[in-house]
Amino acid sequence: MKAEIISIGTELLLGQITNTNASFLASELHELGISSHFQTTVGDNEKRIHEVLKTSLGRSDILITTGGLGPTPDDLTHEALATFFDATRIVDKKVLTELRAKFKSRGYKKMPTNNEKQAYKPKGAKWINNKLGTANGIFWRVKYFGKEKIILTFPGVPREMKQMWNSSAKKSLGKLSKYTIFSKTLKYTGIGESAIAEKINKYFKQSNPTVAPYASIGEVKIRITAREKSLSAAKSKVLHTSKKIKQKTKKYFYGEDEDTLESVVAKLLISKKLTISAAESCTGGLLTKRLTDISGSSKYLKSSMVTYSNSAKEKLLNVSKASLKKYGAVSHQVAKEMAKGIKEAAGSSIGISITGIAGPTGGSKNKPVGLVYFGLSYKNKVKTKEVLFGSNSTRYSIRLRATQYALNWIREELS
Amino acid sequence: MKAEIISIGTELLLGQITNTNASFLASELHELGISSHFQTTVGDNEKRIHEVLKTSLGRSDILITTGGLGPTPDDLTHEALATFFDATRIVDKKVLTELRAKFKSRGYKKMPTNNEKQAYKPKGAKWINNKLGTANGIFWRVKYFGKEKIILTFPGVPREMKQMWNSSAKKSLGKLSKYTIFSKTLKYTGIGESAIAEKINKYFKQSNPTVAPYASIGEVKIRITAREKSLSAAKSKVLHTSKKIKQKTKKYFYGEDEDTLESVVAKLLISKKLTISAAESCTGGLLTKRLTDISGSSKYLKSSMVTYSNSAKEKLLNVSKASLKKYGAVSHQVAKEMAKGIKEAAGSSIGISITGIAGPTGGSKNKPVGLVYFGLSYKNKVKTKEVLFGSNSTRYSIRLRATQYALNWIREELS
Repeated sequence: MKAEIISIGTELLLGQITNTNASFLASELHELGISSHFQTTVGDNEKRIHEVLKTSLGRSDILITTGGLGPTPDDLTHEALATFFDATRIVDKKVLTELRAKFKSRGYKKMPTNNEKQAYKPKGAKWINNKLGTANGIFWRVKYFGKEKIILTFPGVPREMKQMWNSSAKKSLGKLSKYTIFSKTLKYTGIGESAIAEKINKYFKQSNPTVAPYASIGEVKIRITAREKSLSAAKSKVLHTSKKIKQKTKKYFYGEDEDTLESVVAKLLISKKLTISAAESCTGGLLTKRLTDISGSSKYLKSSMVTYSNSAKEKLLNVSKASLKKYGAVSHQVAKEMAKGIKEAAGSSIGISITGIAGPTGGSKNKPVGLVYFGLSYKNKVKTKEVLFGSNSTRYSIRLRATQYALNWIREELS
Repeated sequence: MKAEIISIGTELLLGQITNTNASFLASELHELGISSHFQTTVGDNEKRIHEVLKTSLGRSDILITTGGLGPTPDDLTHEALATFFDATRIVDKKVLTELRAKFKSRGYKKMPTNNEKQAYKPKGAKWINNKLGTANGIFWRVKYFGKEKIILTFPGVPREMKQMWNSSAKKSLGKLSKYTIFSKTLKYTGIGESAIAEKINKYFKQSNPTVAPYASIGEVKIRITAREKSLSAAKSKVLHTSKKIKQKTKKYFYGEDEDTLESVVAKLLISKKLTISAAESCTGGLLTKRLTDISGSSKYLKSSMVTYSNSAKEKLLNVSKASLKKYGAVSHQVAKEMAKGIKEAAGSSIGISITGIAGPTGGSKNKPVGLVYFGLSYKNKVKTKEVLFGSNSTRYSIRLRATQYALNWIREELS
């Protein structure tokens, strides 16, 4: 059983977007135990889509396409599939009604005429329902030179594609595979990819379960995947390796699978019945935004403040003019007073503060871009920390890594 | 002159890494005016690399490969190319000496034997020098069924590939292109992709310049691209179409090319010497985070508050207990008082407020998930707005669209 991923969209050929759909689907196919030897990208062009279909159908059993399901005339994946297989396109009246209802719920008087074509599918194909948008995909068993092929189509919007994959397509394809896959992801912060790799190098060389690292800003994930005929066998293999890896990496481990640093902190706050408030300067609200990304965050967050200017720090957080003058806004002392100030102003159990230089301007020799101070006020004590985020960092990554650091510090204090 | 990008590496087929090389190279080719209609990804497998070479050489003049130039046995791009074209591989003694020196400078006693193969290239090919690593690429003019083809190879490490591309390969290919490309992106908010498409449908059908829409949450982009022999001709074609499209879509247009909604708002605030502060409830700091994504934001943002609880709204923003009781926290009246309160507390020229239900919990029949109120206090007036973000929205998209709406409202008020 061989599958192939075909990414359709002129924006990919122009390099306007990076193809994250292909890597997502490739990794999912791998987990299902379905081989995939080729990936192709082609523009929104019927003739070239046909060329690709011909090549791919000659060597694979399952084709998965992303892109080209939108309402505009350049979106023509379903049209190109229908003409390639010489199939009629038929309108699904139920879907047409659903589409119109979606537009109504968004406040439109009438669905634009363009969107009508999203209710058409090649005869014989089944819908893959798109809950987040109007572009439904199809699951189509179709004959090609006497052999059965399976075609799956998804929209190019990653969020929609993933939702459709996870809620239905993955299961349908999984049934066709002889193997069951089980994976677990271990999550780390406060350590780089190569440093963690050094601790568990030997595991990267084994093949079942496979162990692979994925790094992103301020975070490393280790994914352990086993492929067996039964789920229980796969699971037990993964858990065995997971336990061993955790032993070697305990210090930096914060959670697994669906956990995020903010969800782990939220759970700790809720279980300990604590409330928190943040005083943010250089992160400009990003820490509070992350703390409130969690549904139900009103249980632990009552208020936060973004105090960019010195006068706001004085007026709203009671930071002393003398400290601002003597040490500057980016200092241990001001971080300390900010954490204390926000805890008092908000009446919360914990006050966390961040003050630093996110850049690219505003740095100096003594206080370079990337220098950030943190304060944590909890149980009548105020601690502070100083971190210099690497000089190659951007404004974006400094702000993100600063919030990662703050969340992890809260986690450590409460664990 | 048609080019094709071939990404070689089993890790891409397993979805372990995302193919950022392809989008980089695609965008560079586009800028050079070289068409690229296909991208292919294949594993480190000689037979399958040959299959891909055959397909690609049948339709393109230039093939650009990334990956498979490392020292290990699974890296076999140069070997596969040599066997495909039946060319001898010859060792370059100068490169061998350079490789050995690179290892010496890194503290190795002796270069690992594996790396010797990196000094071999197909006879007739020229080197593309890799200054950051040991994997040199090649620039090879080679005959295929009597026609001249050009093959360029690069390592898979993005940093090395980019350095090699920028320092030599780009120039060599640029000389071969007859065309220059010019693009412009128009940006919109407050309107959906299909609604904007209806206004300018006919432009999507033309081919030079091409006009294509790209949608993301709360935003639509229209990209206009022309290809001509001279830059000035391409530019004038794009500007002509751009002007016509803008006329039909004025109401929703907020900026172009590098503009973001936050950068447009920032420019307006700075040029009018205005300051702003935000009182956020359901968006939890995201609006302020976006306002401070811009370097230099301290010029217009002094402070903001995230007031999640009723008591924080009362205490920090002076919202009246009576209004909270009578209308609830999610209401025109409270949005109004929040906007007024933050403007006063921060001493800013503009106060903006957001209060709503981001979900997935907390909705009711009268106040469903997605219901958001906005307040804008400016020049002694306070206005409010009510928006219901569609019932299919997630917490993530409701929060993002609410900040998009608020930023756009500020933009409209100041324009």
